[in-house]
Formats: sequence, C-alpha cells, structure tokens
Amino acid sequence: MSIVKSTFLLAPAELDRLRVVLVESRNPLNIGAAARAMSNFGFRHLRVVSPYEVAYRQAKAAVGAADLLANSEEYASVAEAVADCTLVVGTTAVGKRDLQHPLKRLEQGGRMVRKQLASSRVALLFGSERYGLSNQDLSHCHWLLHIPTHQQNISMNLGQAVAVCLYELVRDGRAVQPAQRVKRATASEVERATGVLMEALHISGYIKPRRAVYTEENVRRLVRRLDLSTRDVEFWLGIMRQVIWKMKS
Amino acid sequence: MSIVKSTFLLAPAELDRLRVVLVESRNPLNIGAAARAMSNFGFRHLRVVSPYEVAYRQAKAAVGAADLLANSEEYASVAEAVADCTLVVGTTAVGKRDLQHPLKRLEQGGRMVRKQLASSRVALLFGSERYGLSNQDLSHCHWLLHIPTHQQNISMNLGQAVAVCLYELVRDGRAVQPAQRVKRATASEVERATGVLMEALHISGYIKPRRAVYTEENVRRLVRRLDLSTRDVEFWLGIMRQVIWKMKS
Repeated sequence: MSIVKSTFLLAPAELDRLRVVLVESRNPLNIGAAARAMSNFGFRHLRVVSPYEVAYRQAKAAVGAADLLANSEEYASVAEAVADCTLVVGTTAVGKRDLQHPLKRLEQGGRMVRKQLASSRVALLFGSERYGLSNQDLSHCHWLLHIPTHQQNISMNLGQAVAVCLYELVRDGRAVQPAQRVKRATASEVERATGVLMEALHISGYIKPRRAVYTEENVRRLVRRLDLSTRDVEFWLGIMRQVIWKMKS
Repeated sequence: MSIVKSTFLLAPAELDRLRVVLVESRNPLNIGAAARAMSNFGFRHLRVVSPYEVAYRQAKAAVGAADLLANSEEYASVAEAVADCTLVVGTTAVGKRDLQHPLKRLEQGGRMVRKQLASSRVALLFGSERYGLSNQDLSHCHWLLHIPTHQQNISMNLGQAVAVCLYELVRDGRAVQPAQRVKRATASEVERATGVLMEALHISGYIKPRRAVYTEENVRRLVRRLDLSTRDVEFWLGIMRQVIWKMKS
C-alpha cells in the first residue's frame, strides 16, 4: 500500500479560514458534491444561504455525507453568512449581466484569496444552479472570480465549479514529485543486460560477423535508450537467459 | 452584456488531440458530468470503454447532453481505446494498491501532457466510480496522474476529478486579467471629491477651526485611500451636494 500525502500551498490554519457559501442551491447532489470537493481539498467550513430546504435536508441525510455537511451552517441572508469575513468573493460564469465588479480569472484571483487567507477569513460565494448569484448577492462582494472556460460552454456544473476553484487554491506548481521508488540501473547493470542481448543476437544470427562492430554499437545504444531500472535488468536477464537456453538446446 | 473570452494554454489543435477515456463508468450522471467539463474546457473527444450500457444510453439521452456525448466513441477494451495515442496516462487516487508505475502530481503531469499534445494524441484514463482503474487497465499506461488531495478524503467524484484535471491542462498562470473597465479617477477628480467632503465636514462642525489643518490632512489621506474611480467620484459629488444642501436648508 502506498499513500502519498500531498502537500498543499495552504497551511491547515489557512484552509480553516475559508468559508464556502452556497446561495440558494436547489439540488441536493450539488450541495453534497460541493461538500465532497471541500473535503478532498482539506477545507472544512460550508455555509448555505436560504437553500431549498428539501435539498439541504436530503444532502445532509445522504449516505456518506461528511461531517462537513452535518456541521454546515445555514443563514437567511448573504450579509449574515459573510459577516465575519474580510474578503468576499463571488463566482460568476460572466456573460449574463453587465458586471459592475472587478473580474479576475481564477489563476490570479486564487493568489489573492490565498494571500488573504494567511491572516483572515475569506468567503467564496457560489450562486444557484440556474441563475448564479443575483445582483443583490453580488453587492456584498469585493470582486468576482471566473473560471476560464471555452466560449462554447461557459456554464459549469456547481459541484465541478467548486472543485476547480478549491483545487486552484491548494495546487502547488512547485510541488516536488512524490519520491520515485524506481531505482535506475547502474552502468554495469545496463552492460550486463546488453551482454545477454548480444549473446542472444549472436546465437540467433542477427549479428553478422562482417558487420558485428556496427550492429553491436547500435544494440548498445538501443539498450541505453530503454533507460532500465534495476528491477527491469533482472527481469531482462531472466528472459534472455531462457531464450539463449532454448536457442542452444 | 459582457462576455469574457478566455485564453487557454492549449491551442485548438492541441485541445483536439486529447482523448478522455472513461473505463467502466456506471453512473450516467458522471458520464454526463465528464462530458460537460470537457465542453467547459474546450475538449471534444470522449471515449468510453465497456460502460454500463444502461448508464451510457441514459447519459446520451439526457436533456442537454452535448454533441460531445452524442459523438463519443465506445470501445470494448482499453487497448483499442488508446491505440492511436502516443502517451497514455491513468488517473488514480493512490493508496489503493502498490503502484508499479511512476506517479506524478497533476501540476507536473499536466505540464507533460500539454507538451505531448503539441505534437500527438494523449489518452487520459479515468476508472470506474467504485474501483478506479484495474491493474490490467494500468498496464496500458505510461505513468499515473494523481490529484493532490487531503489525506482525510482522497477519493474524488468522477465528474469533479475530470473537471479538475482538464482545468489544470488549460489554466494559464500568466494569463492577463480581463481588461479592467474601471477608470481610475485623476488627481483633480479626487481633489473635487475631497473638496465637497471638506465642505460638508466644515458645515457639520466635524472640522473644528482649532484643529482644521490637522483634520483636513487626515481627510485628504482618507479620500486617497478610497482609490475612487471616475464614476464613483460623480456618484460621491452627488451624494455630498445633497447632504450639504440639506444641512444648509
């Protein structure tokens, strides 16, 4: 079993400062999906504003609904839901209305949200599935965030939009690769692999005496290009020895 | 109406070279969600391998199902679904099995996929909702991609995982902000705004003659900190003139 513990750009205290606010969500699957994405990326505080009550109840009752959903807080207005935050950011698919707000692409806006999370709470608002955030909701926002989408289809599913926004907040472009557990073969191991292949090719008649030097050089280069691991060298030696044994017998 | 046409890191021809391959998907909502995310991020070619037939039919028949889904191709095996691709990448939540493959975080793996898309086709495989990709499926992959998730919940919803991976492929960390349509106020406009505020504060008695110079300096700095736009200066002048008129009458 191998578990890769991912490093995030945000520290636990910073993850804890984000408030994901769903305004007038009507679909229990979407509320559940938003909660799932939050859990995937380490965020914990979900707030819902005047949800469609049946949907909210269903989402909370769903099998596998996280503690996160059980602990979500319900508010009657956007103003109350964002009251303790120093930065309030609305999400929008744009194109729908003449925006009165500064608009930032997720890549840039994400950096600004992260910066603020270093010291204080940020509310990230998502509107209803059908209408997005109303102008009334938007009037509580400092600026708006939009996910860069193709003009052929700018409207994202709510759960997917939440997932993409939260991923942007935690992604780390400089993250180091999880430790490679593959041990590269040493030059002497590669040479052993080359040796058995040469022997097999001589026995099989692939290497002609007249062109042996030339062919051997090509084979040697081929084996280097394979970039074998130590484990693969052993595997390779076993295969070739069997082939040689068969050709000789 | 304002439509922001987003720029992507991938050119149209590159977007067209990706094959999103869903292996043994069982949930029509997830197949539909994968197609929707592809459409959001400008990708066009969906392939499904031995899907649960009822789910595939339902997804294709769903209201609003994109052309993309109608044009998706069905294959009986992973080998056939990836045959024309030069790079085959599997996605995994890790933690489930001892991986025999090199594993890359999405941020790095995404760069490698983009590089390959510059010249040839890449297949990005997603496994079934319950089990992910099997070892048999993985044996067709050059390496594996994992989305950095919090250890508390590493398992992502299929549709959300597709959305996050595709977003990473098109996101552009250096994208310029959509043109700011807010026109910053000039210094003389700011000074006019300051002037009416000063007048109002004198009339109201907020500015005491003895401390006038000191208070006026503070007020002048306050107005500069507001960082007004040209439009807001006009708005501000209107408000203040009304207030002054009321105080005088």
